This record gives sequence, C-alpha cells and structure tokens, in this order.
Amino acid sequence: MERKEVMKRLKNMGTEVVEELETGNSPSIEVPVRTLSNIKFNEELQQLELGASTSKRSFMNVGQSRKFMQTMLIAAWLEKDLVGKGLHTSLRDMYYALKRTIPGTKENTFEDQHSESDPIIVDLETSLGALREELHLNADVRGRVVGNVVIEDRGDTVNWAKLGSGGWSIPSNVEDITIKSVDAEYILLIEKNAAFERLHEDKFWKHENCILITSQGQAARGVRRLANRLSTEFKKPLYVFTDCDAYGWYIYSVIKWGSMNLAHVSDKLGTSQAKFLGLTMTDIEKYELEGYTIRAKDMDVKRAKELLEYPWFKNELWQTQIKLMIKKGYKAELEALSSKGLRFITKTYLPEKIQAREFLP
Amino acid sequence: MERKEVMKRLKNMGTEVVEELETGNSPSIEVPVRTLSNIKFNEELQQLELGASTSKRSFMNVGQSRKFMQTMLIAAWLEKDLVGKGLHTSLRDMYYALKRTIPGTKENTFEDQHSESDPIIVDLETSLGALREELHLNADVRGRVVGNVVIEDRGDTVNWAKLGSGGWSIPSNVEDITIKSVDAEYILLIEKNAAFERLHEDKFWKHENCILITSQGQAARGVRRLANRLSTEFKKPLYVFTDCDAYGWYIYSVIKWGSMNLAHVSDKLGTSQAKFLGLTMTDIEKYELEGYTIRAKDMDVKRAKELLEYPWFKNELWQTQIKLMIKKGYKAELEALSSKGLRFITKTYLPEKIQAREFLP
Repeated sequence: MERKEVMKRLKNMGTEVVEELETGNSPSIEVPVRTLSNIKFNEELQQLELGASTSKRSFMNVGQSRKFMQTMLIAAWLEKDLVGKGLHTSLRDMYYALKRTIPGTKENTFEDQHSESDPIIVDLETSLGALREELHLNADVRGRVVGNVVIEDRGDTVNWAKLGSGGWSIPSNVEDITIKSVDAEYILLIEKNAAFERLHEDKFWKHENCILITSQGQAARGVRRLANRLSTEFKKPLYVFTDCDAYGWYIYSVIKWGSMNLAHVSDKLGTSQAKFLGLTMTDIEKYELEGYTIRAKDMDVKRAKELLEYPWFKNELWQTQIKLMIKKGYKAELEALSSKGLRFITKTYLPEKIQAREFLP
Repeated sequence: MERKEVMKRLKNMGTEVVEELETGNSPSIEVPVRTLSNIKFNEELQQLELGASTSKRSFMNVGQSRKFMQTMLIAAWLEKDLVGKGLHTSLRDMYYALKRTIPGTKENTFEDQHSESDPIIVDLETSLGALREELHLNADVRGRVVGNVVIEDRGDTVNWAKLGSGGWSIPSNVEDITIKSVDAEYILLIEKNAAFERLHEDKFWKHENCILITSQGQAARGVRRLANRLSTEFKKPLYVFTDCDAYGWYIYSVIKWGSMNLAHVSDKLGTSQAKFLGLTMTDIEKYELEGYTIRAKDMDVKRAKELLEYPWFKNELWQTQIKLMIKKGYKAELEALSSKGLRFITKTYLPEKIQAREFLP
C-alpha cells in the first residue's frame, strides 16, 4: 500500500471521530474482534483469517474511554510524526515517545507497553487494513538471505549473490524494497543458521540455483513477508526446512498458514503455497538417524497433540508424522544429519528430497 | 593465524602423543587451567587473561582417560575433516558428527554437547593458542553493520555503504575477511537494534562519517572480533552505546576487557581502547529522563554490586555511576531518549556527547 493511502486512512479515522463529536454523539471506532472465536481457517485460501465480528470502542463508555484515548493518541502520532514525516521506529520507542502524564491529572497516557500500546497497533492494523510495517512500526530483526536476486533499497542496488559469507541482513520492514530480478528455481527457508552456513559455504544456492534464507528460529515478520513477496510476486516455490519437532513444525505452520495472533495479515505474511521439506519422522528412519534423536519431553508431546487438532494439519500425511512422533517419543534436530558427514545435507539429503519432490503439504 | 599454522599445531599435538606412546609412557597433554583462580586482570594491557597454571590430561589416569580420548578424537577430526578440508561448522554439528558408540563397547564417544564436547574446544583454543574460528568452528551469528568500509570475502567485494536498509549481516567468523578500506572517524557499537535502525534511517553514519554496528544484545564473537579488527588494524576509536543497566554495562565490559569465560582470547575479542558513550545515570538527570526509567529489580542491584567489585570497574567514574544506580534504584533503556522525540538521539544526544568527548573509561 502506498504511503498516501495509509495517510488517508489515518486521516479518515480522525475525521469520522471529529464529525461524531460535532453532531454531539459519543465518538467511537469499530475494531475487528481478535479473540479465538473470531479466527477461522479458510480452506480455500489455505490461511488463517479473522471472521466478521467487530466491537465498538466508545469514548463515552467508562470501560473503554482510556483505550479510546490511547487509540486516538497513537493514530494521531502515526499520521503526524511517524508516517507523515517518513520516519520508522519500534513499538518500544513509540511507547516512550507517547508516554506522559496528562496535564492537570495524575493519569499517564500509558503505564505499560505490552498490555497497552502494543495491542493498539494490532487494532489499528486490523481496522485500517494496513500492515504494521505500512504504519512504519518496525518489528524484531532476525534472519539473512543469499541468492541470485537484485534489489533496490534506499537508493542502493544490492545483489544478494555478492555479499561474501555474511549475506544480506533481512530488515524488519521489507515493504519499500523493490525486487528487481530473481534468478532462482525455488526458495529454501531454513530454521537453523548452522545449516544455512553449511549450504552457503558449499555454494548450494549457486549449484542448485535457489535462494537461501535462514529465519534463525521462529521467523520474524521481515522474513515471513520477504518469503511471501519472493514466492508470490515471482511465482517461486517455497520449501521449508526445520527441526523434526513440534516447535519446528509450528515454524512451518506460521510461514505457510499464518499465526493466530496475526490472523488479520495472513495474506501478507503467510505463503500458502509453501511446502515442508523436512525433517520428518520418516527421514529419521530412512536415513538411520535414530541414534541421534532426542527424547521428547512432556511439553513436546503436549505441543504435538495440539498440532494434531489444528484444522490445517488435518491431512493424512501430517497426521501420520505427528502421531509417529508421539508414538516413538523422540525428536531430532537438523544437525543430526551431520552424523552422516558434514556435507551429507548438501550432497545427498536436500538434492534427493527436492528431486523426488518428497514434501509434506 | 594462517591455516597452515593451525594444521601444524594440531599435527604437533598428535605427534607428541604418538611419541610418548612409542616410548611406552602414558601420553598426556597440557591444558591451561581456566578456573577463576587462574584468571587475572592485566592492568597494563587492560584485559582479562589466563595465568600460567596448567593441568595435565593423561590417558592412563582413570579420571582423565575419557576426556583425553574426546580431546584426541576432536583434534584428529579438526585436522583431517574440518580445517584440513577447508570446511567450517558449528559446535552442535561437530557433536553430532563425532557422536557414536565405540565398537565393541557400550560406551558413546559423547553423551552431551554442553558438558562434554563444547568445553574441549575451549581447551584446544587455549592449548593450541588458536581461536575457535581458526579451528573453523563457527559461533552464534547476530549483529549487523553499515558504513564506509569495503571488504573482500569469499571472492566478493562488499561495500557496507551500499546495502540498503538491511546492512551487512556479521558472520560468526570474520577471520578470513580482508578489510580493504575504512573511511570513518570512529566506530559506534550499539546494543539495541532499534537505535541502530533509527541512526541508519537518519544516515547518521554518512553525516558523522562513522561505522555503525549493532550487537543486538550481548555481542556475539563475530561482532567482538570485527570491532577489534576495525579498531586495532585501522586505529579507529570504538564507542559503545548500551542501556543504562548492569546488563548493558556488562556488554561494554566484555567488548572492552574480555570475558572470564574467554579470558584466553581477550587480545583478539576484546578492544581495550573502547570507551563507554552512554547511557549513564548522569545522562538520565541531565536530559531529564527520570519519568522514563524502570525500577531496578533485586537482580539488577545484585548485578550492579558485582560490577562494583570487578577490578576493571575500579575507577572513580564507573564507581560513581554504579553507586548512583544502586542509590536511585532505577535503570533506563536507550529507547527512553525517544521521549525527547524520535530524532533526539541523532540530532542532539550522540553529537553532543561525542563532541564533548563525554566518555567513561
């Protein structure tokens, strides 16, 4: 979305409130409900999304007036001081920038970031239909990328194939990046940085003509959005490679279908055509990695049982894998493949799986 | 150190053991002692370092033979499969690559990474006098950098001034990077990524002609080594900018004087000419940030009292700051400066402090 459009929506929100005030009504805004009851899985689009329920936040309601004030304060600041000035910042900086004692009272605008100012940004994302990044609020930064891709960013032309061992640090906000050219067959998104470094050192992305991304754990918004943009704008398959445990599989789940917390932006942050490459429980048997597994803890089994119940994991292939984990009582890390030799992942495991298209949906 | 030299030292270790075996003696190796009793603060060099105590690890001693076997196994693998083949990997991958059941026994080479294989790498670093990176074992990767610096890395020429919003992702191992040119007055190393993004967006590094690094929390080895190389090889002052709390100050302490865990490599990972730029308790008063401080928890006060006792913090300026924190009972984050406006840090705080050379030692 263009900055102009974001500004217009912010302004409209304010104008409507002023108009209500002028007619003598209590001003209010409509905010989509974000509780579990209003989160649906859209089978057709293969993504989590918000239902139609909304709630009113009203100025003249004692229970809502503080939140209403905070929403207006943030929206006005976004319009005037952040988006309006072309600046970007973090949620924490925003909290500090807006925290103060309201003159003539002992009331502070905010007492706490996580319970007060953060949720209002999600409210604004949903009610304005604008990404947090489009509101110029940066998220955590984590993850890096290499491959035959040329981008333009802040006036610089950056070739991800020419960045040495480091690679390009994926920023928190990739909205304003122009992707100039993509010469790759597919995108490989890897949970673990160590595996990324192995593949990068072995020039896997050159030989296989692919883009390598590491999320370094749970994928930050920047990584998810970048994978989405590369995959949808350039029609490239996205393969996800995580540990064989409920945590790794959930990382995949968020990359593909979106997350419950951010169900309102699954279309931008989720990539529904993503496929799961590994590690699977079947891999462990096939490649004889049993000696390198880790005993599953109660927590792992509990999480696996939760995955079993998610509608998006309700297909035979995933149910088989998850049940197998619960039955065997073990999990495995990507690094277990190193027991076959450091280059096993580069020379055997990945080429074999990709060649055979041995993916989970 | 050249790869050839590392290979030679690894080979020598093996040759000595073989010679002892051939003369019928129990083979052994000398390993520097790394307990607190053997860690000293070198006033002159301004760095933590190991004392002269060593201990013998002997094959024919029942209490040491397992560790001796593990040391030999790792050293041989480093020589033959890792450094010898020009590959790099992580500690976790090494653990998996070397874990197996010894034929004819029920004994595994390793049962646990953190208590068994990891410490042996530190032993080898100390006894061989080679950095872990020179042994081709990568550490965690975290941190990014921008500025007028051109490097050569794996055949690519990378200009840190031309990398858009992302910047260059600092790899875990910066030993093999050739720094071609540095056009900067100083290096500014920032704990928080959000402040780095603010300064980068404001083109602070262009206007002030400096190099910006963010460690994103405690500085990873790659960040510490890169700061050391830039500062010592190119004679550039290094200024460190952290939160005003015991944790932030300890980040500075590790960057400048080294850490107790890695006292044997302080000369490579520490930068003794580093200066502390902020945040200080005095800053909080001067810039009227009291309303944006956070109450110190018991843990914060306990850590602050520990800092007071470290020999390297035993100077009047630091003692005053630490005592002030304990007395006032609060701490503050970098983001507190945003209460003065998002660009206060770029326009006022940093230029003023650097201009006035208002540093702590």
